[in-house]
Amino acid sequence: MLYDLIIVGSGPAGLSAALYAGRYKLKTLLLGAVLGGAMAEAWKIENYPGFKTIAGMELAKRIKEQVEDLGIEIFQDEVTKIQNPKSKFQIVARSGKKFESRALILALGTQRRKLNVPGEEKFHGRGVSYCATCDGILFQNKVVAVVGGGDSAIKSGSLLVKYAKKVYLLVRGNELSGEPMNVEKVKSQKEKVKIIYGVEILEIKGDSKVQSVVLNNGEELKLDGVFIEIGATPASALIKDLKVDLDEKGYLKVDENQRTNIPFIYAAGDVATAMGGFKQVLTAAAQGAVAATSVYKDLRG
Amino acid sequence: MLYDLIIVGSGPAGLSAALYAGRYKLKTLLLGAVLGGAMAEAWKIENYPGFKTIAGMELAKRIKEQVEDLGIEIFQDEVTKIQNPKSKFQIVARSGKKFESRALILALGTQRRKLNVPGEEKFHGRGVSYCATCDGILFQNKVVAVVGGGDSAIKSGSLLVKYAKKVYLLVRGNELSGEPMNVEKVKSQKEKVKIIYGVEILEIKGDSKVQSVVLNNGEELKLDGVFIEIGATPASALIKDLKVDLDEKGYLKVDENQRTNIPFIYAAGDVATAMGGFKQVLTAAAQGAVAATSVYKDLRG
Repeated sequence: MLYDLIIVGSGPAGLSAALYAGRYKLKTLLLGAVLGGAMAEAWKIENYPGFKTIAGMELAKRIKEQVEDLGIEIFQDEVTKIQNPKSKFQIVARSGKKFESRALILALGTQRRKLNVPGEEKFHGRGVSYCATCDGILFQNKVVAVVGGGDSAIKSGSLLVKYAKKVYLLVRGNELSGEPMNVEKVKSQKEKVKIIYGVEILEIKGDSKVQSVVLNNGEELKLDGVFIEIGATPASALIKDLKVDLDEKGYLKVDENQRTNIPFIYAAGDVATAMGGFKQVLTAAAQGAVAATSVYKDLRG
Repeated sequence: MLYDLIIVGSGPAGLSAALYAGRYKLKTLLLGAVLGGAMAEAWKIENYPGFKTIAGMELAKRIKEQVEDLGIEIFQDEVTKIQNPKSKFQIVARSGKKFESRALILALGTQRRKLNVPGEEKFHGRGVSYCATCDGILFQNKVVAVVGGGDSAIKSGSLLVKYAKKVYLLVRGNELSGEPMNVEKVKSQKEKVKIIYGVEILEIKGDSKVQSVVLNNGEELKLDGVFIEIGATPASALIKDLKVDLDEKGYLKVDENQRTNIPFIYAAGDVATAMGGFKQVLTAAAQGAVAATSVYKDLRG
């Protein structure tokens, strides 16, 4: 079976690309490891036009239903290999299944950046987390730290207040750089949130679980959990062999039609360079729609 | 009162820009003649991720509520003049009210293209219409024609079937060029829809109302209504004095951050050149979000 289009990644870019591909009647397969991608971790989305507030997973499910109504196949699996031998693409998934298509939309998203300090790896899942939405509830009445000063760190801090009895916000620089509304909110929670500027974690310590972090100012904070929110890097490792042009940070370069430099390969969402690098559910979805439109045009003629 | 930002146009681009501006805590005014813009005429939107089907006006109202919750002012009025005397913008509305801002997002949308044939002007509102969603219901059990072969024409044809007893689709070329799903749907309605290829209207005739159209093949079709759906032109007349660069068709040129060539003037949605010229509710909204983000960055720095 040769598909017209395989979409790799089932976050908002991939889902929206599938929705448009369905309307264009392209024979399409949507392949992704996690329905909703990074959006699925979002506990509350308030800036997607049409919903005052919606959980990321709920929005993902709604779009998935739209996509299924159009007869698009969705297969939940992790893509492990992509090859481009002749005039088609060959895709291998973790399950061993193989798929072929004439065109490819890469909606690979990003991966969380790591601190790379002693203890981080050892205590991952035992106090160290990269997702407050996923794991916050495990820290009821505990003491936690969030590492980072950007919007993700700030929002994680505000969320953790609902569970933890104390939240440290450990910021390397001397200010918070998130959306003003979010900054204001976290700063207003003075009784529970303590923001410490100009610090870095040197080590995460514990026995079977995290017990403390050692900071570069000599302080050691006793705590139960560390949430690492220091950004993300494009998940472009998978496509090394495809010769798609990347920018200096590893994002897939696209034109305003979401075309990469390789014919019939398109990229959309957080992994792509489009829209000034602005990374939102809304902009990812729009890029997916544009990518599917380009596939439709290019396959026609 | 000097606003940080005035957004001109309250379609999906303007509304989404207002939503993001609100989250950035910019002192913002949203000015538009018609809430929802062209989207308000859409009877059914099925390709906006998150809603299987939603009326354009309903989606507009939902986003408006989100915007109002953030404390953004919305003023329904038509902008008649925009000036850029020194370091601020001065805006005059139809009502005579005047407003000033530091930055300007132009989300002006497009205007319907006209046939420019005898009778078109005379019978406008008396059988000639540019909006099937608005006026279709007036033609219960009547005979109507839709002029055009693109997606808007095709969708209007499918909608009019619900009211009219017969629908001619008058296509200048020799094929329909809309979304395949929509083309299939209109073609399947053989008992009511007659598609005539390779024709143009030379004249619209009637007495107090439309009675017939004369085609360039010599035929005269007796009918009660003519829906003209032959595309749109950018509504850029308003900004002639601002020296914003336009492309050859009159669309406002923007970079991938939605900035025009004039500092602190941004454009978003159907009036702008972004995203390969793809014109959808989703892409307009994404452009609005990016424009508001650029305003926030530029006013800060």
